[in-house]
Amino acid sequence: MDQSLKRSLIRECKLSSEKVVLLQGWVKKIRHLGNLSFLILRDRTGVIQCVLENDLAGYKVEVESVVEIIGKLVETPKTELGVEVLVKEVKMLNTSDRLPFEVNKRKLQVGLDQMLNERVTSLRHERIQAIFKVQSTLVQAFSEFLIMNDFTQIFTPKIVSQGGEGGANVFKLPYFQKEAYLAQSPQFYKQMMVAGGLERVFEVAPVYRAEYHNSSRHLNEYISLDVEAGFIQDFYEVMKLETDLLRYMFKKVAEMCEKELNLLQITVPIITEIPKITLTDAQLILKEKYRKESPVGDLDTEGEKLLGKYVTETYGSDFVFITHYPKEARPMYTMPNKDNPMVTDSFDLLYKGLEITSGAQRIHEYNLLIASFEEKGLQVEDFQSYINTFRYGCPPHGGFAIGLERLVYKFLELSNVREASAFPRDCTRLIP
Amino acid sequence: MDQSLKRSLIRECKLSSEKVVLLQGWVKKIRHLGNLSFLILRDRTGVIQCVLENDLAGYKVEVESVVEIIGKLVETPKTELGVEVLVKEVKMLNTSDRLPFEVNKRKLQVGLDQMLNERVTSLRHERIQAIFKVQSTLVQAFSEFLIMNDFTQIFTPKIVSQGGEGGANVFKLPYFQKEAYLAQSPQFYKQMMVAGGLERVFEVAPVYRAEYHNSSRHLNEYISLDVEAGFIQDFYEVMKLETDLLRYMFKKVAEMCEKELNLLQITVPIITEIPKITLTDAQLILKEKYRKESPVGDLDTEGEKLLGKYVTETYGSDFVFITHYPKEARPMYTMPNKDNPMVTDSFDLLYKGLEITSGAQRIHEYNLLIASFEEKGLQVEDFQSYINTFRYGCPPHGGFAIGLERLVYKFLELSNVREASAFPRDCTRLIP
Repeated sequence: MDQSLKRSLIRECKLSSEKVVLLQGWVKKIRHLGNLSFLILRDRTGVIQCVLENDLAGYKVEVESVVEIIGKLVETPKTELGVEVLVKEVKMLNTSDRLPFEVNKRKLQVGLDQMLNERVTSLRHERIQAIFKVQSTLVQAFSEFLIMNDFTQIFTPKIVSQGGEGGANVFKLPYFQKEAYLAQSPQFYKQMMVAGGLERVFEVAPVYRAEYHNSSRHLNEYISLDVEAGFIQDFYEVMKLETDLLRYMFKKVAEMCEKELNLLQITVPIITEIPKITLTDAQLILKEKYRKESPVGDLDTEGEKLLGKYVTETYGSDFVFITHYPKEARPMYTMPNKDNPMVTDSFDLLYKGLEITSGAQRIHEYNLLIASFEEKGLQVEDFQSYINTFRYGCPPHGGFAIGLERLVYKFLELSNVREASAFPRDCTRLIP
Repeated sequence: MDQSLKRSLIRECKLSSEKVVLLQGWVKKIRHLGNLSFLILRDRTGVIQCVLENDLAGYKVEVESVVEIIGKLVETPKTELGVEVLVKEVKMLNTSDRLPFEVNKRKLQVGLDQMLNERVTSLRHERIQAIFKVQSTLVQAFSEFLIMNDFTQIFTPKIVSQGGEGGANVFKLPYFQKEAYLAQSPQFYKQMMVAGGLERVFEVAPVYRAEYHNSSRHLNEYISLDVEAGFIQDFYEVMKLETDLLRYMFKKVAEMCEKELNLLQITVPIITEIPKITLTDAQLILKEKYRKESPVGDLDTEGEKLLGKYVTETYGSDFVFITHYPKEARPMYTMPNKDNPMVTDSFDLLYKGLEITSGAQRIHEYNLLIASFEEKGLQVEDFQSYINTFRYGCPPHGGFAIGLERLVYKFLELSNVREASAFPRDCTRLIP
């Protein structure tokens, strides 16, 4: 074998012709036709047809084996690429057993459980791989936008001494001689980093909810895209920041993931302005338009879905901010509204009828915060290092968090949020 | 107040002159001199001198309070910026109590424990903030380089069903009706994603070690920068990838963090080639040159330090790859060397005498892997979903992981790895 030949990627074969290449990848299909065989080779960049003639015809190989192929690129009008490979040598790099299910069909015909149990096999399908390329690109765009806007990426502990917001639903673990919890959110820490002088911070990290849900939209471990910014004027500025951020993320994914989005037949939303509806108005719309009653101070799953539908029809928007949740429905660090202190300067963002974000202006004044903790019946002493933050000049600030898997789930119109997680964790799933 | 005025950042005041600006930030210092007061204002971008005259002279404010200042920029030869602010209005945004320690000295005069206990206060010091700006930039550069090189960012679970590499030192937790562990590394998952067809993946995420160490270089929760690449020729390719990556990261940080690096008086290493020494040779060098005995199949902390010194003196390099560790010293998935199967195609990277990376080519053949598991006395059944990966065409692959806090610790010549973690976790520290 020619030692000087380096691996070419399949996408690089596009413009070349009549030259010898070395390709490596998986056997997607093989077909024997008299004294010719056609092997479809797949690598991370695409697929190419490889023609085996003479001695090589009839080459025996199980699909999804890993092979190295040396051959000549020749033009062909028959394939999308415009080139195929006339094979000179095939070398087996690693064999494959017969797969638990077929992966070379246009759509993967397999149930969710098997798709997740056999993740390595299901990932071989281009449409499944596309989900994770899109996810990676969205995260990259998220970080890029924030870095361009002077944010600092932070890393805060997931093993914590409090459950987070004083609620239940936390995973407990023994930590040396102490009892600890897995963080439900980096909320306290991101506020502390803002107050510490970094002003604008973001974090991309797992968060944990020990909830018994077994719905299509809940995970017990998920990736939270957290943002917190100091020196804001009000919570409208926070919503504007999220709007600009999402606009950037979708623009970037449209540019970078054209192939994947075509494969998944997804159109990227163009975000101009995102409509804002107060919770009170939202509940009224649901009641008047859909005869739908809502729980006090909140929307339920069905209400969110209907409202998503309403906003699409009325404003042509996949997104809507629901604002001004009542105090009781929000955590103790949420800023009360100046004009009506019974409601808060808070918002949720619904995307195609599903909550993907909670955000708010936070309380930055020490006395107001203490009062808010006490009103919720929380022990200030349990949160001392957080509370102390507000004694030493904490600027006005606010932020939000986007659930990554939910964003991908809704964007790519998957049937379950678990499809947007490589190895999802739910109350029954711990393997793989 | 003029409603149309928007906040300017201090760094933006550089080139302007004679115009009215609105600034927001922390009071770093205030000095009263007859009927003038000088207030040094700090925001995330720098510091500026603000002059208070007439009625405003003698303005009472505790340092580290948050203020908004409206004033006229005037040229001055007396400050580094070349401009100062002639104050028209000061507004208090949030007061500060007296700080637990002073933060407006050139160097922060405080012990490690207090620095970490009072993180929000210590972060106010520019040198401390600089650490986290540098860390953020290194991570950004890490992701950027890998994305440019066709890697996909992945997110894998930290709650897992096995302790990882079958070792002890794992945190256990109850997970619904099961027993689970916190991941020691994303090793299995990143290999699975490579084999799934993504070929090249990276992850930036916390990992957990339940070790009782209380040294200056260990954390029980730290950020692992993980890389795994398919279709490699050999483990030299993996070392080359890490070399190129580190070169990019340091180049980027030199460009982006000039101010921070000047403040910390740090020179960025220029990486050309990183010397490679086999473990056997390294042990021999230690013995001959420093009369230092090493443990079987490894280097100890002192050995690593001496070797770091040796490499700096001999090759002018802060970095050295130690290669070919024996089988017994490496996990079961490490590829044995073709010529000498008692050693492995593995490496550690030492940076200034501290291990910051482990890496290797991995075993991709099913039978070889099974044999290696058995040789280590491990039960194959306990690792079934990982092992299955190798039945369905896994390409040759390898990778490595960089400990983020260790990289920052050594790069910035900090005295303890905890200084590179905003809220470090060790066997006694769980708060804040």
